[in-house]
Amino acid sequence: MNNIIVQKFGGTSVGTTELIKKVAERVVKEKRSGKKVVVVVSAMGKSTDDLVEMALDINENPSSREMDVLLATGEQVSISLLAMAIDALGEKAISLTGAQCGIITDSHHKNARISEIQTNRLLTELYDGNIVIVAGFQGITSDLNISTLGRGGSDTTAVALAAALKADCCEIYTDVDGVYSADPRKVTNAKRMDIISYDEMLELAKLGAQVLHPRSVEMARNYNVPLYVKPSHTEGQGTKIAEVNNLENYKVRGVTIDKDIARLSITGVPDKPGIAFRLFERLAENDITIDMILQNLNHNTQNDISFTVPMDHLSACAGIAKAYKDEIEADDVVMKENVSKISVIGTGITSNPVIASKMFGALYELGVNIEMISTSETKISCIIDDQHSDEVLEKIHALFF
Amino acid sequence: MNNIIVQKFGGTSVGTTELIKKVAERVVKEKRSGKKVVVVVSAMGKSTDDLVEMALDINENPSSREMDVLLATGEQVSISLLAMAIDALGEKAISLTGAQCGIITDSHHKNARISEIQTNRLLTELYDGNIVIVAGFQGITSDLNISTLGRGGSDTTAVALAAALKADCCEIYTDVDGVYSADPRKVTNAKRMDIISYDEMLELAKLGAQVLHPRSVEMARNYNVPLYVKPSHTEGQGTKIAEVNNLENYKVRGVTIDKDIARLSITGVPDKPGIAFRLFERLAENDITIDMILQNLNHNTQNDISFTVPMDHLSACAGIAKAYKDEIEADDVVMKENVSKISVIGTGITSNPVIASKMFGALYELGVNIEMISTSETKISCIIDDQHSDEVLEKIHALFF
Repeated sequence: MNNIIVQKFGGTSVGTTELIKKVAERVVKEKRSGKKVVVVVSAMGKSTDDLVEMALDINENPSSREMDVLLATGEQVSISLLAMAIDALGEKAISLTGAQCGIITDSHHKNARISEIQTNRLLTELYDGNIVIVAGFQGITSDLNISTLGRGGSDTTAVALAAALKADCCEIYTDVDGVYSADPRKVTNAKRMDIISYDEMLELAKLGAQVLHPRSVEMARNYNVPLYVKPSHTEGQGTKIAEVNNLENYKVRGVTIDKDIARLSITGVPDKPGIAFRLFERLAENDITIDMILQNLNHNTQNDISFTVPMDHLSACAGIAKAYKDEIEADDVVMKENVSKISVIGTGITSNPVIASKMFGALYELGVNIEMISTSETKISCIIDDQHSDEVLEKIHALFF
Repeated sequence: MNNIIVQKFGGTSVGTTELIKKVAERVVKEKRSGKKVVVVVSAMGKSTDDLVEMALDINENPSSREMDVLLATGEQVSISLLAMAIDALGEKAISLTGAQCGIITDSHHKNARISEIQTNRLLTELYDGNIVIVAGFQGITSDLNISTLGRGGSDTTAVALAAALKADCCEIYTDVDGVYSADPRKVTNAKRMDIISYDEMLELAKLGAQVLHPRSVEMARNYNVPLYVKPSHTEGQGTKIAEVNNLENYKVRGVTIDKDIARLSITGVPDKPGIAFRLFERLAENDITIDMILQNLNHNTQNDISFTVPMDHLSACAGIAKAYKDEIEADDVVMKENVSKISVIGTGITSNPVIASKMFGALYELGVNIEMISTSETKISCIIDDQHSDEVLEKIHALFF
């Protein structure tokens, strides 16, 4: 316990100068309780959208490097304003850009990965009595180009700093008051959880719960950073994400739905080594996000490979899949648009056969056809038609809560 | 001649995405003519004002360090957008912030001075075939804090880069089509000059001609950088500023008026060493800009010290002057608000007594009282009442042109 805490406030929490003053009050309160406070902030509200609009007006396909230079200004505005707001409350604060904070990334512009955090300046400022305000979402490459971390970037910055500083914890402030057993806007009796394990949160995050990006949860798990999701505008206790020992208590922790996805299958794929690898390598090179992958043996020497992609990646993905099909002399590419993935999540739930059978039974009763099934240690997911999804979500949630 | 050219575009030249595309066309044309092009840009139009407004809404007296972090985002937006616009025209471009460009400054935030330019990256990018777009107005201190250069900052960046790169010339694009013998909005038959000396430009700049900041002209003179003032929206040839050998040709090159200034006098100052020095030291410490200083012997052991300040520095200045008067037991502080300074400029003109006598004669004929007179190698200035200033400007200009 070194008394360091990392707090992260997203774009909606710092959307106006009034909201920035509110964040300053909260941060100052934490500092006055005796903590060393590091604050990570995102760009103000919709300011990033405005920058993107200007860029696209100038160049339909702007270079990733220059987009990063442009977008990094958003957080730079927020950090300086928050430092000023804290100063106005009589506490010392200093803002640091990603570069000044020593956040070194690889050169994958617009989607960079943090390779190292050089904490010397951060620690100096912190031990000088400053509240340190860090620009989320951005870093600098080893050859001094500005980079951004892509989706979930600010959460990732916060967790990475907490890990590098061995902070007591990392608090992510959002416009919801914690992690729920299902999306509370869709499921009326969704329940806020006080505590949830990293793995469960990871599955919830991957499966469409918008609270935290899986990248940041993975990093928190890998570095064992206690993570809190807290409401930015109220005093609720939120949800703690940590290592939870519930090996003997296999129960469903959440139910999620992920819409707007598509299923693709390549049928009649020759059963030779490397075939699947090359397909997914090619999709990755084109930045196509693949989710579920299933392969099941069809005939003696032929497989069907199925996978899901977000709807907006479908056309690019279909082109690649069709070209690949011709190349490897497979039979066909079959697509189904607008499917949903419904998942139940809980550590060890696949060890408890009752849960899967309850889930499949409920879908059967609703007359919903299951297109694909995939399971892991912590989740059971089924691909179903989009048109059923809201009804299915409510029903499955009610089964377990 | 190393074929490098530095072009600077101000905020009005890059005020919209459409204007940025126009600047890109001009820059690309220069590059395609075989030049290595470095472009310095300011923040877009009024974007700086918006940032300042947000800052003041949060903190009435924001820290200079954080203001620099905030304001530096303005140019960072411009450079990335211009790089994208050039890329859209099929030429290679790369944007560099002050820090990336190696512009090292002292730590006087909001008004930093460039101490060094580390040109290695700039040259690498240039010789890689890039058009290099540099954020004007900003730099980085040796301890890695973002700094800004204050008034005239972007012009200064451009000239400093031209000097450091030993560029063939530095072109400053503005919304006027060159340097005039008087402000063309005020004097109907003001004349654009094809060429003017550094010293003459310096006097014109110091005396209210808004085209170039004296800092940048001084630097151009000191490093012998040929400077051009050119119109950004038309093809005019503009005005060249360079070493001009016209020792035998003492003539008036321009007439300027500087309004909204105030005169202060401390009367009955004891005639002891260090008295004036300590006064001006104290004013400098409070960032009060002093212009004309006159001291003339009043009695045997007492002097009057007079000086002029911008009207918006008057109240701060008066407070300091009064306190100082009490301290040194002088007689009184006398102020006159809203005076103007009319000046005629031309290398060596004070060697030609006809010019001063014509000027004083014209003021006499107009019934204008001269409050103070000051002369240098290249100018003759008179302090007069504001209410006469427009009439006087027109009349004096007509005398010499």
